[in-house]
Amino acid sequence: MPVNQPELSPPLPVPGFRVGTASCGVKSPALKGKRQDLTLIVSDVDCHAAGVFTRNRFRAACVRWGEKTLASHAEQVRAIVANAGNANAGLGEMETVWGKQLIEAGADAAGVDAACVLSASTGVIGTPFPIERIQANMFEAADSLTADNWEAAANAIRTTDTFAKWSSAQIEIDGNSYTLTGIAKGSGMIHPNMATMLGFVATDAPIAAAVLQPMLKRVANRSFNCISVDGDTSTNDTLYLLSSGIGLGHAPLSDTALFEQALTNLCIELAQQIVRDGEGVSKFVTIEVTGAASEADARTVGRAVAVSPLVKTAFAGSDANWGRILSAVGNSGVAIDTNAITLSADDLLMFEKGNLHPDYRDDEGMAIFANDEFTISLDLGMGDASATIWTGDLTHEYIVINAEYRT
Amino acid sequence: MPVNQPELSPPLPVPGFRVGTASCGVKSPALKGKRQDLTLIVSDVDCHAAGVFTRNRFRAACVRWGEKTLASHAEQVRAIVANAGNANAGLGEMETVWGKQLIEAGADAAGVDAACVLSASTGVIGTPFPIERIQANMFEAADSLTADNWEAAANAIRTTDTFAKWSSAQIEIDGNSYTLTGIAKGSGMIHPNMATMLGFVATDAPIAAAVLQPMLKRVANRSFNCISVDGDTSTNDTLYLLSSGIGLGHAPLSDTALFEQALTNLCIELAQQIVRDGEGVSKFVTIEVTGAASEADARTVGRAVAVSPLVKTAFAGSDANWGRILSAVGNSGVAIDTNAITLSADDLLMFEKGNLHPDYRDDEGMAIFANDEFTISLDLGMGDASATIWTGDLTHEYIVINAEYRT
Repeated sequence: MPVNQPELSPPLPVPGFRVGTASCGVKSPALKGKRQDLTLIVSDVDCHAAGVFTRNRFRAACVRWGEKTLASHAEQVRAIVANAGNANAGLGEMETVWGKQLIEAGADAAGVDAACVLSASTGVIGTPFPIERIQANMFEAADSLTADNWEAAANAIRTTDTFAKWSSAQIEIDGNSYTLTGIAKGSGMIHPNMATMLGFVATDAPIAAAVLQPMLKRVANRSFNCISVDGDTSTNDTLYLLSSGIGLGHAPLSDTALFEQALTNLCIELAQQIVRDGEGVSKFVTIEVTGAASEADARTVGRAVAVSPLVKTAFAGSDANWGRILSAVGNSGVAIDTNAITLSADDLLMFEKGNLHPDYRDDEGMAIFANDEFTISLDLGMGDASATIWTGDLTHEYIVINAEYRT
Repeated sequence: MPVNQPELSPPLPVPGFRVGTASCGVKSPALKGKRQDLTLIVSDVDCHAAGVFTRNRFRAACVRWGEKTLASHAEQVRAIVANAGNANAGLGEMETVWGKQLIEAGADAAGVDAACVLSASTGVIGTPFPIERIQANMFEAADSLTADNWEAAANAIRTTDTFAKWSSAQIEIDGNSYTLTGIAKGSGMIHPNMATMLGFVATDAPIAAAVLQPMLKRVANRSFNCISVDGDTSTNDTLYLLSSGIGLGHAPLSDTALFEQALTNLCIELAQQIVRDGEGVSKFVTIEVTGAASEADARTVGRAVAVSPLVKTAFAGSDANWGRILSAVGNSGVAIDTNAITLSADDLLMFEKGNLHPDYRDDEGMAIFANDEFTISLDLGMGDASATIWTGDLTHEYIVINAEYRT
């Protein structure tokens, strides 16, 4: 069960885009007709596009093809084709061939050039990719293309996700109204065969690819790269951003700061949905790091706390174990002054400048850690940079799922 | 229950050294008389000494005092004083004072200069250090000093360890016979309040401190730094090596290679005992990395596999999940060629040069992962360097202990 996940408002259509899905039985022919597992996102005009990919050295075919397409056609992207049920990864040379065939099938059905199509695959690793079952149903996806199909797409990219993830926003810039809609999948790196993180964001705000690419990298660093369920990343992790605005005839935005803020908020919302849906997660914890020498340091410290099994089990056990948190900070590799650190849980000061705070009472700490949502604040006292990380706890349930579950 | 831990032969006395213990009730006065928690190791002559300490940025008083003593008196060390039950850490300024008082009490009882005494503390963090209870019983420890008391010392430094850990070896060099005896404590970084790793090794092999220090660093990198229960390190982790040989009148060894090999084997044996005693560990897994560009790369890759919660839960579930192992390699940060990697479990070839091996059968992999002891071999195909890491699995029991246990 996701932690404290409010019901989502319906996703908004985005001018220029149509979305379709189909059921192929990618994972198993027996699933054909039982669930949608193929998604086609098509733009009527050339999109400017950007992508951010996994940092794992094992990179699936869709990641390698995506980088290639963005290198040559970042201003002419026309479609994304995505399948769930098979990651097309760990398959040697055939992987590259199948990856290309997926793109070609999507391009044919969308009626666009394959050089202008991005792809994403998620699902089991090491199982031959059933390209024929996908090819056989691609036109079904194309036939269902409509502007208001984003929720269906959010469902069709799910693997172990317990709910479909999306978010929309509308912003006003220079008197014009623009829409952003994003869908995502992922429930933590539950299972490398199953738990790729995917995110696709579409907007009609007119922004050039050369601006979008560094922006998406910054945004990913403040959203998807700030979540941690267990610290691992998958072979297929992909975030795509498509902008139809220039193709629709709008002049490129001269000031993109407002848009970047809206995009950041939207990606944080999607990333938090993934944490709330983390396997075995019973608590949603925010780690706020301030006073760092650099934003990278702040993120490293926050991640070190967020991935520590000892910290995560303390969260699970409602144990206000400040020693484990500080030890994780000390293990992060970031240069810190242990006499400068201050640690709070919500508004409760626990540890101040190297000493346990004299007023701190363990029962008050325990009461906060017993909540299903709380914030750990760490002031490193080294500078002005900050970062926020969102994470979950490590429960029995995680072990059950990961030790006993096998696709 | 430790995994596959054979019964240990009695530790051997080491010429020059006497060992004593006492019961202070360090953790709680109620434990006074119930268990030994104070250890004194005294040398009748000046020892050449070396130390390796935690890499955590939070460093307890004993670590800071130990570094200071080794900087000035590495050729005149006369004693180690160690307590269990309280780490004397996370206590601000008083920590330094109490740490010095511990050393002074040990020096008084041993009848040596405090500048020549090393110390180590392990136990709860953040609880005022009960120096008076230790001072009151230090002479009891001194009164019990005998040459054959190493097993008592191995018991007295335990905290959550389920068994006392030691190892002895005798080596013949240039016609002379020398002894090494080491004791250790630690059962994985189970609980930062309780799970410091300590190791003390004594020998009468005559080796100068200037040679011992870099040697101990190399040895630690191939033994204690190659084990992982959950990847965290504590504020108090300490390894000391004391050599009485020169003080006993032996000429320093001209060739120390044989000694270094014996020391490495002894420290590996102690480190493996710690893994076998890891909380919640039900399997003992060896990760052999070969074909790396450097030994550091090999160690980084091995550790990445060993600490991955996904890999560790796969071990627990007897799931021969090669995808998780390769994904952990890809996440290690080390530059790898994914088409050069070969992966085996014991003698079973699973993945070869970027492809699942055509003869690999999942049921054969499962049969190996079902054992309580097996070896994962990774050939990176990048060079000639190698490293071996020893680790355990991640079980329900780990969560139970760490989520529900609190000192």
